[in-house]
Amino acid sequence: MLRLDEGEDLFTALGDFARSQEIRAAAVVSGIGMLKEVTIGYWNGSEYVRKELTEPHELVGLHGSIAEADGPSIHLHAALAAPSHQLVGGHLMRGTVCVLNELLIETFPGRTFGRPIDETLGLRKLDLEPTRILRAP
Amino acid sequence: MLRLDEGEDLFTALGDFARSQEIRAAAVVSGIGMLKEVTIGYWNGSEYVRKELTEPHELVGLHGSIAEADGPSIHLHAALAAPSHQLVGGHLMRGTVCVLNELLIETFPGRTFGRPIDETLGLRKLDLEPTRILRAP
Amino acid sequence: MLRLDEGEDLFTALGDFARSQEIRAAAVVSGIGMLKEVTIGYWNGSEYVRKELTEPHELVGLHGSIAEADGPSIHLHAALAAPSHQLVGGHLMRGTVCVLNELLIETFPGRTFGRPIDETLGLRKLDLEPTRILRAP
Repeated sequence: MLRLDEGEDLFTALGDFARSQEIRAAAVVSGIGMLKEVTIGYWNGSEYVRKELTEPHELVGLHGSIAEADGPSIHLHAALAAPSHQLVGGHLMRGTVCVLNELLIETFPGRTFGRPIDETLGLRKLDLEPTRILRAP
Repeated sequence: MLRLDEGEDLFTALGDFARSQEIRAAAVVSGIGMLKEVTIGYWNGSEYVRKELTEPHELVGLHGSIAEADGPSIHLHAALAAPSHQLVGGHLMRGTVCVLNELLIETFPGRTFGRPIDETLGLRKLDLEPTRILRAP
Repeated sequence: MLRLDEGEDLFTALGDFARSQEIRAAAVVSGIGMLKEVTIGYWNGSEYVRKELTEPHELVGLHGSIAEADGPSIHLHAALAAPSHQLVGGHLMRGTVCVLNELLIETFPGRTFGRPIDETLGLRKLDLEPTRILRAP
Protein backbone atom coordinates (compact mmCIF):
# COMPACT_ATOMS: atom_id res chain seq x y z
CA MET A 1 0.00 0.00 0.00
CA LEU A 2 1.38 3.38 -0.99
CA ARG A 3 0.00 6.87 -0.47
CA LEU A 4 0.96 9.67 -2.84
CA ASP A 5 0.30 13.30 -2.01
CA GLU A 6 -0.94 16.48 -3.69
CA GLY A 7 1.23 17.73 -6.51
CA GLU A 8 3.37 14.65 -7.09
CA ASP A 9 3.89 13.52 -10.67
CA LEU A 10 2.44 10.01 -10.71
CA PHE A 11 5.04 8.45 -13.01
CA THR A 12 7.99 10.14 -11.26
CA ALA A 13 6.67 9.07 -7.86
CA LEU A 14 6.16 5.46 -8.97
CA GLY A 15 9.59 5.39 -10.62
CA ASP A 16 11.21 6.73 -7.43
CA PHE A 17 9.24 4.18 -5.39
CA ALA A 18 10.41 1.32 -7.64
CA ARG A 19 14.06 2.46 -7.48
CA SER A 20 14.05 3.02 -3.71
CA GLN A 21 12.41 -0.36 -3.06
CA GLU A 22 14.49 -2.12 -5.74
CA ILE A 23 11.32 -3.29 -7.49
CA ARG A 24 11.94 -4.77 -10.93
CA ALA A 25 8.64 -6.61 -11.32
CA ALA A 26 5.29 -5.45 -9.95
CA ALA A 27 1.62 -5.10 -10.68
CA VAL A 28 -0.15 -1.83 -9.94
CA VAL A 29 -3.21 -3.62 -8.60
CA SER A 30 -5.49 -0.65 -7.99
CA GLY A 31 -5.48 3.05 -7.26
CA ILE A 32 -8.00 5.67 -6.19
CA GLY A 33 -7.98 9.37 -5.33
CA MET A 34 -7.88 12.24 -7.80
CA LEU A 35 -5.59 13.18 -10.70
CA LYS A 36 -5.03 16.49 -12.48
CA GLU A 37 -2.99 17.51 -15.55
CA VAL A 38 -3.89 14.18 -17.10
CA THR A 39 -3.20 12.94 -20.62
CA ILE A 40 -4.86 9.72 -21.75
CA GLY A 41 -4.26 7.92 -25.03
CA TYR A 42 -6.11 5.60 -27.38
CA TRP A 43 -3.86 3.39 -29.53
CA ASN A 44 -5.20 3.53 -33.09
CA GLY A 45 -2.78 0.90 -34.36
CA SER A 46 0.05 3.28 -35.15
CA GLU A 47 -0.01 6.04 -32.54
CA TYR A 48 -1.73 7.26 -29.38
CA VAL A 49 -4.67 9.62 -29.96
CA ARG A 50 -4.29 11.91 -26.98
CA LYS A 51 -6.79 13.72 -24.81
CA GLU A 52 -5.78 16.30 -22.21
CA LEU A 53 -8.07 16.64 -19.21
CA THR A 54 -8.16 20.28 -18.15
CA GLU A 55 -9.99 19.69 -14.86
CA PRO A 56 -9.12 17.42 -11.94
CA HIS A 57 -10.85 14.04 -12.21
CA GLU A 58 -11.74 11.41 -9.63
CA LEU A 59 -9.42 8.43 -10.14
CA VAL A 60 -11.81 5.49 -10.25
CA GLY A 61 -9.48 2.79 -11.55
CA LEU A 62 -5.72 2.48 -12.05
CA HIS A 63 -4.10 -0.76 -13.14
CA GLY A 64 -0.87 -1.82 -14.75
CA SER A 65 2.64 -3.09 -14.35
CA ILE A 66 6.14 -2.01 -13.43
CA ALA A 67 8.91 -3.62 -15.47
CA GLU A 68 12.59 -2.85 -16.02
CA ALA A 69 13.88 -1.26 -19.22
CA ASP A 70 16.83 1.03 -18.43
CA GLY A 71 15.02 1.98 -15.22
CA PRO A 72 11.42 1.42 -14.16
CA SER A 73 9.07 1.00 -17.12
CA ILE A 74 5.55 1.83 -15.94
CA HIS A 75 2.45 0.87 -17.95
CA LEU A 76 -0.84 2.19 -16.58
CA HIS A 77 -4.44 2.38 -17.72
CA ALA A 78 -6.85 4.66 -15.87
CA ALA A 79 -10.58 5.33 -15.52
CA LEU A 80 -11.35 8.90 -14.50
CA ALA A 81 -14.60 10.61 -13.50
CA ALA A 82 -15.27 14.14 -14.75
CA PRO A 83 -17.18 16.71 -12.67
CA SER A 84 -20.27 15.48 -14.56
CA HIS A 85 -19.48 11.96 -13.17
CA GLN A 86 -19.02 10.64 -16.71
CA LEU A 87 -15.99 8.39 -17.09
CA VAL A 88 -13.16 8.79 -19.58
CA GLY A 89 -9.98 6.79 -19.72
CA GLY A 90 -7.41 4.79 -21.60
CA HIS A 91 -3.64 4.45 -21.61
CA LEU A 92 -2.34 6.91 -19.01
CA MET A 93 0.44 9.10 -20.40
CA ARG A 94 0.72 11.79 -17.72
CA GLY A 95 -0.94 12.69 -14.42
CA THR A 96 -0.38 14.67 -11.24
CA VAL A 97 -1.74 13.58 -7.87
CA CYS A 98 -4.63 15.78 -6.69
CA VAL A 99 -5.45 15.67 -2.94
CA LEU A 100 -4.09 12.12 -2.52
CA ASN A 101 -3.77 8.74 -4.20
CA GLU A 102 -4.07 5.36 -2.47
CA LEU A 103 -2.27 2.67 -4.47
CA LEU A 104 -2.03 -1.07 -3.99
CA ILE A 105 1.10 -2.57 -5.53
CA GLU A 106 2.02 -6.24 -5.64
CA THR A 107 5.69 -6.96 -6.07
CA PHE A 108 7.40 -10.09 -7.37
CA PRO A 109 10.61 -10.10 -5.30
CA GLY A 110 13.67 -11.49 -7.03
CA ARG A 111 12.03 -11.31 -10.46
CA THR A 112 12.44 -8.87 -13.31
CA PHE A 113 9.74 -8.08 -15.86
CA GLY A 114 11.19 -6.95 -19.18
CA ARG A 115 9.54 -4.54 -21.59
CA PRO A 116 11.38 -4.87 -24.92
CA ILE A 117 10.21 -3.05 -28.02
CA ASP A 118 8.17 -5.23 -30.36
CA GLU A 119 9.14 -3.83 -33.78
CA THR A 120 6.04 -5.27 -35.45
CA LEU A 121 3.72 -3.46 -33.06
CA GLY A 122 5.87 -0.38 -32.55
CA LEU A 123 5.20 -0.78 -28.82
CA ARG A 124 7.02 -2.04 -25.76
CA LYS A 125 5.55 -5.38 -24.69
CA LEU A 126 5.60 -6.99 -21.26
CA ASP A 127 8.02 -9.91 -21.11
CA LEU A 128 7.46 -12.61 -18.48
CA GLU A 129 10.13 -15.02 -19.81
CA PRO A 130 10.69 -17.93 -19.97
CA THR A 131 6.91 -18.34 -20.41
CA ARG A 132 4.17 -15.74 -20.48
CA ILE A 133 2.98 -16.78 -17.04
CA LEU A 134 4.79 -15.57 -13.92
CA ARG A 135 3.77 -17.02 -10.59
CA ALA A 136 4.25 -15.11 -7.36
CA PRO A 137 6.88 -16.80 -5.16
CA MET B 1 -13.03 -13.28 -1.38
CA LEU B 2 -16.40 -12.12 -0.11
CA ARG B 3 -19.85 -12.44 -1.61
CA LEU B 4 -22.59 -9.96 -0.74
CA ASP B 5 -26.22 -10.59 -1.53
CA GLU B 6 -29.28 -8.76 -2.86
CA GLY B 7 -30.45 -5.88 -0.71
CA GLU B 8 -27.43 -5.48 1.56
CA ASP B 9 -26.15 -1.98 2.16
CA LEU B 10 -22.59 -2.09 0.83
CA PHE B 11 -21.01 0.11 3.53
CA THR B 12 -22.88 -1.58 6.37
CA ALA B 13 -21.93 -5.03 5.06
CA LEU B 14 -18.26 -4.08 4.70
CA GLY B 15 -18.24 -2.49 8.15
CA ASP B 16 -19.79 -5.62 9.67
CA PHE B 17 -17.27 -7.76 7.78
CA ALA B 18 -14.35 -5.66 9.06
CA ARG B 19 -15.64 -5.80 12.66
CA SER B 20 -16.36 -9.54 12.60
CA GLN B 21 -12.96 -10.37 11.07
CA GLU B 22 -11.16 -7.78 13.24
CA ILE B 23 -9.78 -6.05 10.15
CA ARG B 24 -8.18 -2.68 10.86
CA ALA B 25 -6.19 -2.37 7.64
CA ALA B 26 -7.28 -3.64 4.24
CA ALA B 27 -7.48 -2.86 0.55
CA VAL B 28 -10.71 -3.42 -1.34
CA VAL B 29 -8.87 -4.81 -4.34
CA SER B 30 -11.78 -5.26 -6.73
CA GLY B 31 -15.51 -5.79 -6.86
CA ILE B 32 -18.08 -6.72 -9.48
CA GLY B 33 -21.81 -7.37 -9.61
CA MET B 34 -24.57 -4.77 -9.59
CA LEU B 35 -25.45 -1.86 -7.31
CA LYS B 36 -28.68 0.07 -6.85
CA GLU B 37 -29.65 3.17 -4.81
CA VAL B 38 -26.20 4.57 -5.56
CA THR B 39 -24.82 8.03 -4.79
CA ILE B 40 -21.50 9.02 -6.31
CA GLY B 41 -19.54 12.17 -5.61
CA TYR B 42 -17.05 14.44 -7.35
CA TRP B 43 -14.81 16.44 -5.00
CA ASN B 44 -14.72 20.02 -6.30
CA GLY B 45 -12.12 21.14 -3.77
CA SER B 46 -14.56 22.02 -1.03
CA GLU B 47 -17.46 19.55 -1.20
CA TYR B 48 -18.76 16.48 -3.01
CA VAL B 49 -20.97 17.19 -6.02
CA ARG B 50 -23.44 14.32 -5.76
CA LYS B 51 -25.25 12.28 -8.35
CA GLU B 52 -27.99 9.79 -7.47
CA LEU B 53 -28.40 6.84 -9.80
CA THR B 54 -32.08 5.97 -10.05
CA GLU B 55 -31.58 2.67 -11.89
CA PRO B 56 -29.49 -0.38 -10.97
CA HIS B 57 -26.03 -0.24 -12.58
CA GLU B 58 -23.50 -2.94 -13.40
CA LEU B 59 -20.59 -2.61 -10.96
CA VAL B 60 -17.55 -2.62 -13.23
CA GLY B 61 -14.88 -1.48 -10.80
CA LEU B 62 -14.69 -1.04 -7.04
CA HIS B 63 -11.46 -0.13 -5.28
CA GLY B 64 -10.47 1.39 -1.98
CA SER B 65 -9.32 0.90 1.55
CA ILE B 66 -10.58 0.00 5.00
CA ALA B 67 -8.98 1.94 7.85
CA GLU B 68 -9.86 2.48 11.50
CA ALA B 69 -11.32 5.74 12.80
CA ASP B 70 -13.77 5.02 15.65
CA GLY B 71 -14.82 1.89 13.76
CA PRO B 72 -14.16 0.85 10.18
CA SER B 73 -13.52 3.80 7.86
CA ILE B 74 -14.26 2.71 4.30
CA HIS B 75 -13.11 4.70 1.27
CA LEU B 76 -14.37 3.42 -2.09
CA HIS B 77 -14.38 4.60 -5.68
CA ALA B 78 -16.64 2.89 -8.19
CA ALA B 79 -17.19 2.62 -11.94
CA LEU B 80 -20.79 1.78 -12.85
CA ALA B 81 -22.42 0.91 -16.16
CA ALA B 82 -25.86 2.34 -16.96
CA PRO B 83 -28.45 0.41 -18.97
CA SER B 84 -26.99 2.28 -22.00
CA HIS B 85 -23.59 0.69 -21.10
CA GLN B 86 -22.11 4.17 -20.56
CA LEU B 87 -19.96 4.41 -17.44
CA VAL B 88 -20.34 6.87 -14.61
CA GLY B 89 -18.47 6.89 -11.34
CA GLY B 90 -16.46 8.64 -8.68
CA HIS B 91 -16.27 8.59 -4.91
CA LEU B 92 -18.91 6.10 -3.72
CA MET B 93 -21.12 7.58 -1.02
CA ARG B 94 -23.95 5.03 -0.88
CA GLY B 95 -24.95 1.79 -2.60
CA THR B 96 -27.09 -1.31 -2.15
CA VAL B 97 -26.13 -4.70 -3.51
CA CYS B 98 -28.26 -5.74 -6.48
CA VAL B 99 -28.32 -9.47 -7.35
CA LEU B 100 -24.84 -10.10 -5.86
CA ASN B 101 -21.39 -8.59 -5.41
CA GLU B 102 -18.10 -10.49 -5.60
CA LEU B 103 -15.39 -8.63 -3.68
CA LEU B 104 -11.68 -9.30 -3.32
CA ILE B 105 -10.22 -7.86 -0.12
CA GLU B 106 -6.58 -7.94 0.93
CA THR B 107 -5.97 -7.58 4.64
CA PHE B 108 -2.86 -6.47 6.48
CA PRO B 109 -3.06 -8.59 9.67
CA GLY B 110 -1.70 -6.95 12.79
CA ARG B 111 -1.67 -3.50 11.19
CA THR B 112 -3.98 -0.52 11.55
CA PHE B 113 -4.54 2.08 8.86
CA GLY B 114 -5.55 5.44 10.30
CA ARG B 115 -7.78 7.99 8.59
CA PRO B 116 -7.35 11.27 10.50
CA ILE B 117 -8.96 14.48 9.30
CA ASP B 118 -6.59 16.73 7.36
CA GLU B 119 -7.84 20.18 8.33
CA THR B 120 -6.21 21.82 5.29
CA LEU B 121 -8.06 19.54 2.88
CA GLY B 122 -11.23 19.19 4.91
CA LEU B 123 -11.01 15.44 4.21
CA ARG B 124 -9.98 12.29 6.03
CA LYS B 125 -6.65 11.09 4.68
CA LEU B 126 -5.20 7.58 4.74
CA ASP B 127 -2.38 7.27 7.26
CA LEU B 128 0.21 4.52 6.76
CA GLU B 129 2.57 5.71 9.52
CA PRO B 130 5.46 5.69 10.19
CA THR B 131 6.03 6.15 6.44
CA ARG B 132 3.55 6.38 3.61
CA ILE B 133 4.47 2.90 2.40
CA LEU B 134 3.03 -0.17 4.12
CA ARG B 135 4.34 -3.59 3.12
CA ALA B 136 2.27 -6.71 3.48
CA PRO B 137 3.75 -9.05 6.13
CA MET C 1 0.77 -12.39 -13.90
CA LEU C 2 -0.31 -13.56 -17.32
CA ARG C 3 0.21 -12.04 -20.75
CA LEU C 4 -2.20 -12.76 -23.57
CA ASP C 5 -1.41 -11.97 -27.18
CA GLU C 6 -3.07 -10.51 -30.26
CA GLY C 7 -5.99 -12.50 -31.58
CA GLU C 8 -6.62 -14.78 -28.61
CA ASP C 9 -10.19 -15.22 -27.46
CA LEU C 10 -10.14 -13.94 -23.87
CA PHE C 11 -12.53 -16.53 -22.41
CA THR C 12 -10.90 -19.45 -24.27
CA ALA C 13 -7.43 -18.32 -23.17
CA LEU C 14 -8.49 -17.94 -19.53
CA GLY C 15 -10.25 -21.31 -19.61
CA ASP C 16 -7.15 -22.98 -21.07
CA PHE C 17 -5.02 -21.21 -18.45
CA ALA C 18 -7.28 -22.41 -15.63
CA ARG C 19 -7.28 -26.00 -16.95
CA SER C 20 -3.50 -26.14 -17.54
CA GLN C 21 -2.75 -24.69 -14.10
CA GLU C 22 -5.49 -26.74 -12.41
CA ILE C 23 -7.12 -23.58 -11.07
CA ARG C 24 -10.57 -24.15 -9.59
CA ALA C 25 -10.80 -20.93 -7.58
CA ALA C 26 -9.32 -17.58 -8.58
CA ALA C 27 -9.91 -13.86 -8.75
CA VAL C 28 -9.14 -11.97 -11.94
CA VAL C 29 -7.68 -9.06 -10.01
CA SER C 30 -7.00 -6.66 -12.88
CA GLY C 31 -6.32 -6.51 -16.57
CA ILE C 32 -5.18 -3.91 -19.09
CA GLY C 33 -4.38 -3.78 -22.80
CA MET C 34 -6.88 -3.65 -25.64
CA LEU C 35 -9.87 -5.77 -26.64
CA LYS C 36 -11.71 -6.10 -29.95
CA GLU C 37 -14.85 -7.98 -31.04
CA VAL C 38 -16.35 -7.18 -27.66
CA THR C 39 -19.88 -7.81 -26.41
CA ILE C 40 -20.92 -6.28 -23.10
CA GLY C 41 -24.17 -6.83 -21.28
CA TYR C 42 -26.45 -5.01 -18.84
CA TRP C 43 -28.65 -7.29 -16.71
CA ASN C 44 -32.15 -5.82 -16.73
CA GLY C 45 -33.49 -8.33 -14.21
CA SER C 46 -34.42 -11.00 -16.73
CA GLU C 47 -31.83 -10.90 -19.53
CA TYR C 48 -28.64 -9.24 -20.70
CA VAL C 49 -29.12 -6.17 -22.89
CA ARG C 50 -26.19 -6.54 -25.25
CA LYS C 51 -23.94 -4.04 -26.96
CA GLU C 52 -21.41 -5.01 -29.60
CA LEU C 53 -18.32 -2.82 -29.89
CA THR C 54 -17.30 -2.57 -33.52
CA GLU C 55 -13.94 -0.89 -32.88
CA PRO C 56 -11.03 -2.00 -30.70
CA HIS C 57 -11.20 -0.42 -27.23
CA GLU C 58 -8.56 0.24 -24.59
CA LEU C 59 -9.12 -2.21 -21.73
CA VAL C 60 -9.11 0.03 -18.67
CA GLY C 61 -10.46 -2.38 -16.07
CA LEU C 62 -11.10 -6.12 -15.94
CA HIS C 63 -12.21 -7.86 -12.76
CA GLY C 64 -13.92 -11.07 -11.85
CA SER C 65 -13.65 -14.65 -10.75
CA ILE C 66 -12.87 -18.14 -12.01
CA ALA C 67 -15.02 -20.90 -10.52
CA GLU C 68 -15.70 -24.51 -11.47
CA ALA C 69 -18.96 -25.62 -13.07
CA ASP C 70 -18.30 -28.47 -15.51
CA GLY C 71 -15.03 -26.75 -16.42
CA PRO C 72 -13.83 -23.22 -15.68
CA SER C 73 -16.70 -20.77 -15.12
CA ILE C 74 -15.40 -17.27 -15.79
CA HIS C 75 -17.29 -14.15 -14.67
CA LEU C 76 -15.80 -10.84 -15.84
CA HIS C 77 -16.82 -7.20 -15.84
CA ALA C 78 -14.89 -4.75 -18.01
CA ALA C 79 -14.41 -1.01 -18.50
CA LEU C 80 -13.41 -0.11 -22.05
CA ALA C 81 -12.31 3.19 -23.61
CA ALA C 82 -13.57 4.08 -27.08
CA PRO C 83 -11.45 6.03 -29.58
CA SER C 84 -13.22 9.13 -28.16
CA HIS C 85 -11.82 8.13 -24.72
CA GLN C 86 -15.37 7.73 -23.36
CA LEU C 87 -15.84 4.60 -21.27
CA VAL C 88 -18.42 1.89 -21.77
CA GLY C 89 -18.67 -1.38 -19.94
CA GLY C 90 -20.61 -3.98 -18.03
CA HIS C 91 -20.76 -7.75 -17.89
CA LEU C 92 -18.23 -9.03 -20.43
CA MET C 93 -19.75 -11.63 -22.75
CA ARG C 94 -17.10 -11.87 -25.49
CA GLY C 95 -13.76 -10.30 -26.34
CA THR C 96 -10.61 -10.88 -28.38
CA VAL C 97 -7.19 -9.70 -27.26
CA CYS C 98 -5.93 -6.75 -29.32
CA VAL C 99 -2.15 -6.07 -29.23
CA LEU C 100 -1.73 -7.63 -25.76
CA ASN C 101 -3.38 -8.05 -22.37
CA GLU C 102 -1.61 -7.98 -19.03
CA LEU C 103 -3.65 -9.84 -16.39
CA LEU C 104 -3.13 -10.27 -12.67
CA ILE C 105 -4.78 -13.42 -11.31
CA GLU C 106 -4.89 -14.52 -7.68
CA THR C 107 -5.45 -18.20 -7.14
CA PHE C 108 -6.78 -20.02 -4.09
CA PRO C 109 -4.82 -23.29 -4.24
CA GLY C 110 -6.65 -26.35 -2.98
CA ARG C 111 -10.02 -24.58 -3.04
CA THR C 112 -12.92 -24.77 -5.47
CA PHE C 113 -15.36 -21.95 -6.11
CA GLY C 114 -18.74 -23.20 -7.24
CA ARG C 115 -21.14 -21.37 -9.55
CA PRO C 116 -24.51 -23.10 -9.26
CA ILE C 117 -27.58 -21.74 -10.98
CA ASP C 118 -29.82 -19.73 -8.68
CA GLU C 119 -33.28 -20.50 -10.07
CA THR C 120 -34.82 -17.41 -8.47
CA LEU C 121 -32.37 -15.09 -10.19
CA GLY C 122 -31.97 -17.11 -13.39
CA LEU C 123 -28.22 -16.58 -12.98
CA ARG C 124 -25.22 -18.57 -11.87
CA LYS C 125 -24.06 -17.30 -8.48
CA LEU C 126 -20.60 -17.57 -6.91
CA ASP C 127 -20.53 -20.12 -4.12
CA LEU C 128 -17.85 -19.79 -1.43
CA GLU C 129 -19.26 -22.50 0.87
CA PRO C 130 -19.39 -23.22 3.77
CA THR C 131 -19.69 -19.44 4.35
CA ARG C 132 -19.70 -16.59 1.87
CA ILE C 133 -16.19 -15.58 2.94
CA LEU C 134 -13.17 -17.43 1.59
CA ARG C 135 -9.76 -16.61 3.04
CA ALA C 136 -6.57 -17.10 1.07
CA PRO C 137 -4.45 -19.89 2.61
